[in-house]
Amino acid sequence: MSFSILHTGHVEIRAVDLERARGFYVDVLGMVETEREPGRIYLRGIDDPFHHCLTLRKANSPGLGHYGLRVSSSGDLDALEELHKKKGILTRKIPAGHEKGQGEALRVEDPAGFPVEFYHDMDRADILVGKAAYRQGIEITRIDHVTNCTPETKKEFDYYTSALGFAFSSYRINDKGVIDRMFLRRKENTHDLGFQNQPGPRNRHFALWVKDWPSIIRACDTLTMSGLKDKIEYGPGRHTPFDFAVYLHDTEGNRVELYHDERMFIDPEYSVVQRAQANVGGQVSFPFWGMPAPESYIYDQLPVESIIDGSLKPSTPEIRGDSSLTESSLLPRM
Amino acid sequence: MSFSILHTGHVEIRAVDLERARGFYVDVLGMVETEREPGRIYLRGIDDPFHHCLTLRKANSPGLGHYGLRVSSSGDLDALEELHKKKGILTRKIPAGHEKGQGEALRVEDPAGFPVEFYHDMDRADILVGKAAYRQGIEITRIDHVTNCTPETKKEFDYYTSALGFAFSSYRINDKGVIDRMFLRRKENTHDLGFQNQPGPRNRHFALWVKDWPSIIRACDTLTMSGLKDKIEYGPGRHTPFDFAVYLHDTEGNRVELYHDERMFIDPEYSVVQRAQANVGGQVSFPFWGMPAPESYIYDQLPVESIIDGSLKPSTPEIRGDSSLTESSLLPRM
Amino acid sequence: MSFSILHTGHVEIRAVDLERARGFYVDVLGMVETEREPGRIYLRGIDDPFHHCLTLRKANSPGLGHYGLRVSSSGDLDALEELHKKKGILTRKIPAGHEKGQGEALRVEDPAGFPVEFYHDMDRADILVGKAAYRQGIEITRIDHVTNCTPETKKEFDYYTSALGFAFSSYRINDKGVIDRMFLRRKENTHDLGFQNQPGPRNRHFALWVKDWPSIIRACDTLTMSGLKDKIEYGPGRHTPFDFAVYLHDTEGNRVELYHDERMFIDPEYSVVQRAQANVGGQVSFPFWGMPAPESYIYDQLPVESIIDGSLKPSTPEIRGDSSLTESSLLPRM
Amino acid sequence: MSFSILHTGHVEIRAVDLERARGFYVDVLGMVETEREPGRIYLRGIDDPFHHCLTLRKANSPGLGHYGLRVSSSGDLDALEELHKKKGILTRKIPAGHEKGQGEALRVEDPAGFPVEFYHDMDRADILVGKAAYRQGIEITRIDHVTNCTPETKKEFDYYTSALGFAFSSYRINDKGVIDRMFLRRKENTHDLGFQNQPGPRNRHFALWVKDWPSIIRACDTLTMSGLKDKIEYGPGRHTPFDFAVYLHDTEGNRVELYHDERMFIDPEYSVVQRAQANVGGQVSFPFWGMPAPESYIYDQLPVESIIDGSLKPSTPEIRGDSSLTESSLLPRM
Repeated sequence: MSFSILHTGHVEIRAVDLERARGFYVDVLGMVETEREPGRIYLRGIDDPFHHCLTLRKANSPGLGHYGLRVSSSGDLDALEELHKKKGILTRKIPAGHEKGQGEALRVEDPAGFPVEFYHDMDRADILVGKAAYRQGIEITRIDHVTNCTPETKKEFDYYTSALGFAFSSYRINDKGVIDRMFLRRKENTHDLGFQNQPGPRNRHFALWVKDWPSIIRACDTLTMSGLKDKIEYGPGRHTPFDFAVYLHDTEGNRVELYHDERMFIDPEYSVVQRAQANVGGQVSFPFWGMPAPESYIYDQLPVESIIDGSLKPSTPEIRGDSSLTESSLLPRM
Repeated sequence: MSFSILHTGHVEIRAVDLERARGFYVDVLGMVETEREPGRIYLRGIDDPFHHCLTLRKANSPGLGHYGLRVSSSGDLDALEELHKKKGILTRKIPAGHEKGQGEALRVEDPAGFPVEFYHDMDRADILVGKAAYRQGIEITRIDHVTNCTPETKKEFDYYTSALGFAFSSYRINDKGVIDRMFLRRKENTHDLGFQNQPGPRNRHFALWVKDWPSIIRACDTLTMSGLKDKIEYGPGRHTPFDFAVYLHDTEGNRVELYHDERMFIDPEYSVVQRAQANVGGQVSFPFWGMPAPESYIYDQLPVESIIDGSLKPSTPEIRGDSSLTESSLLPRM
Repeated sequence: MSFSILHTGHVEIRAVDLERARGFYVDVLGMVETEREPGRIYLRGIDDPFHHCLTLRKANSPGLGHYGLRVSSSGDLDALEELHKKKGILTRKIPAGHEKGQGEALRVEDPAGFPVEFYHDMDRADILVGKAAYRQGIEITRIDHVTNCTPETKKEFDYYTSALGFAFSSYRINDKGVIDRMFLRRKENTHDLGFQNQPGPRNRHFALWVKDWPSIIRACDTLTMSGLKDKIEYGPGRHTPFDFAVYLHDTEGNRVELYHDERMFIDPEYSVVQRAQANVGGQVSFPFWGMPAPESYIYDQLPVESIIDGSLKPSTPEIRGDSSLTESSLLPRM
Repeated sequence: MSFSILHTGHVEIRAVDLERARGFYVDVLGMVETEREPGRIYLRGIDDPFHHCLTLRKANSPGLGHYGLRVSSSGDLDALEELHKKKGILTRKIPAGHEKGQGEALRVEDPAGFPVEFYHDMDRADILVGKAAYRQGIEITRIDHVTNCTPETKKEFDYYTSALGFAFSSYRINDKGVIDRMFLRRKENTHDLGFQNQPGPRNRHFALWVKDWPSIIRACDTLTMSGLKDKIEYGPGRHTPFDFAVYLHDTEGNRVELYHDERMFIDPEYSVVQRAQANVGGQVSFPFWGMPAPESYIYDQLPVESIIDGSLKPSTPEIRGDSSLTESSLLPRM
């Protein structure tokens, strides 16, 4: 039995005040509400062909519910269930309709404790790009990736590449031979999943794709004009000569990246392995150019839920001053 | 035996004056010369990991030599040879080194007479993005696609999708049930190959990818400041809400598109079939917005070479005033 | 008695359907309605400190009512009245409040028959830049200039420069010693008034200033997404290496340019006189780069009103095929 | 006797290594060398109609030599000499040719001790905009303004507005009734001179104007690709909804701002007076949006020269932790 993962297709995040969160993602950032039910609002980007890529779920604190990896057919779910059972990994079947607009799904807890959902079927929705009514200056088109913190980077690397078939765009090994950063992909851009060698399991951020890089400048303008300048945590800046990004806090305390990257990873050879260089000047996170990161960006990460009962999973303790968190350039060389 | 095509990886075009052509692609447009030999200059974009994506070949008139489809392993060439022999399609083995930097390759004449080359091995080259010395205002990163004219669109559709495994991003059927336009892809953006229902086999253009859409404006500036304003044949404009393009004549008479498109075609469902609408106002080629196309853009296409002897293949006669050449919108709907 | 003109401050245009015109300028282009009265709607840009820069006036056909030149004090009106009486030029006093929000004004018919209004006092209004509610993707900040057609270019040059104190940014003299084009300024950018040697008195267009050049691309997107693609008459393109422009028809048949130019004319020496060059390839109106102009853009101009009775002034006959309408480059050289 | 100041026209800065400084301003930032002599290199922007706007002068430490205000005729110098003598202000005549390409000039020490030079005559030079050879990605067109630190803001306000005829775009008064910030203009954009209530006389920075805001992003790219990322001290960001800026250290230790602002100050009413608001979150210098300023940007300022002997003038002592240095928004309201 075989399966094929297409890409990171949705995330469910926790929101203390659903309407306030909707105001942030819809009224300010320009996403679109497809549907709602008590306790949940389902949003999509203006280029999404499906029902949702972001679910806001009522909860008493921020954090990550789960992230969804879309597979190429519904039959893939059986193959994935078998695979995880053989590995002794906890799985849970999610019936069709449990998440509105979505067919049957399979949740697993990955080797580092992250809540992953595999799914295929989702209701179609109108692609709204090119329809003036939905144009608000910022054009968020879809979800792009999820980035997590874990001390178990090697386990995760093996699981996602060997078991699930992800390729890597780049990874970095530090002085102790530990993978510091890794960017893993199924679709042909920089990554569907990123992992960072930090205490975990914790979520670093999820990233929404914006249509082009000038839209990121416009997003800063719009947030400021909407009285939400303090939600701009870090940026804008460039990780590489090709991308453009800004990191925001949403109104609930989750971290969301607005991101655009011009590269396509078409040839398998277009990937990088690097050894961590000596830290230069404390530069973190915008290795190409950008101001130094604030402490909050470096250390404050989000809890993730258990796939069993939705409780927040405990994390290994946070270590301030961890020098491995400074970053060297990760340009695509071969 | 199986095979997998990655993407359109290079084109070879004819140039009456090699140095003049190099001046256009390198000195003005900012491509990079990797190597040269008598009669040929090999160029790449600043994000190319391989030896070349554009070969200028000395000839006494403009036209297309061949286009190269990169496959995922060298063993794929055997599978492709067998496939074409079974179909009774003409093939020709190209020894390693016949094109500098390239391993063994297989050329075939596709059902409509176009010269296709399958290849895998090519020498690595430095990716130059992010190195100031190669920055000239326009950032051409790689080749993107080739677009051809043929009256045999149905044959080509079947060959590329059924035999070679291409997906389509969109195609359009006219009143007579004929495929008017089709955009076929292997990589996850709009297309690797485009075909248009016009007399052929003739080449419409090849497209170089630029880093972002503002670079297309800068390209118009740079061409004008270099005294080459008359090489801007058509544009800039948008085919869809997502792309940005300008069509140029190079100094030799070939047509090259500078192109950027923000969409990724990740989900197989993200494709379009349309019926041609009534022609509205003679709008051609920039269905989203842009000025009307000049006659040259609509009718003047380039000859293509025979894979046997490099002679230019005869084309079915050009038909001026063909109303099917006006274009309706091809937005990505499902 | 002395006076000082500040800049072109407003225009009044004719609209067959006031609500439809408001839809175009406010709902699509993002201008702001300050006030209305029966038969008139007063609009401003988002950076306007005053009541209005564009008045839509109900009429049975398109055309230009008048253009307003703001002077530096209300006392300037007396000096201007005296000046025009000495010259035997028709003047007319406009009482305060005749145009909502505006103090007393003086209208004159300039030597070529154009309706000019001098004014100083106008009610203040909130500058709305930076307030999210007024952000719609296109940011029209203010009015910039008015361009007219007249065979009396020399008379107009003398009147505006010698009598009214305008400087010129550039003018062009053709083979017969006639001024073909001229760009006259009081404020420190390219022009407040442009004149073109064509049958007249007729209005060529008025220009709204947009915040930056990428906004012009966004304007094309927004018009297209609003179903108004056919209102894009010509462009976008560049007249010089510094500007960016697109010409639109509004819903009433008036022509409006969306314009941005990066230059400031600070030093008086920064001006150009040129002799018309031989016509090269029929390029009209985007001498730096841009597609050829459509016939409508070259020949179809708007009538202007009499300051006496609001009747449309007769124009000298239009001459198709006038070769002086092709344009050479007007770069700022000294 | 009357005079009229046009704008800030040039600065002379100190450079420890002239060739290294030339490498920064010419090879990386794309300015143009007009002429050199032992000990000095004269540079201009690509839109400068005159000989120079930036003089690099050999010295043993960084700092500001003087800034030049261009007047509208050479006769203005006599009127200015008389004015300053009446005020008992130190003046010094500079003979024609003392600075290459420049006619006779008059230097004065302004009330707070800054070295000001009035001049009119300067040799013409080719405007290079639109000539490809001078295009390097960043398009620095001219000098824009100079910003200084002084505890004598009130004296400077009176001198520049009452005696020299500057208008103000905005100023801010703090809780103690002291002017904290002021932006004074002669040309019709935000400012020719800025002053900040800090120990002085010291120079904060001089600003080079870039063609458009995307050029500021490209400047960050080019600096990084040239190995000069550490010269980006602060930014990019926006002081207002209209501008875009980044602050650099040059290779010699001077601070230079790359700046673009979309506003024109055409109407005298378009100016702002504000009272300083309570400090909010330590935000400094990018009141619209941008990351917090580094300490160096807030406290480390440059010495200025005496007009008598070129010695560096002593400054009142620097005060770390001065809370008045945090900034509130300075949007243009009336």
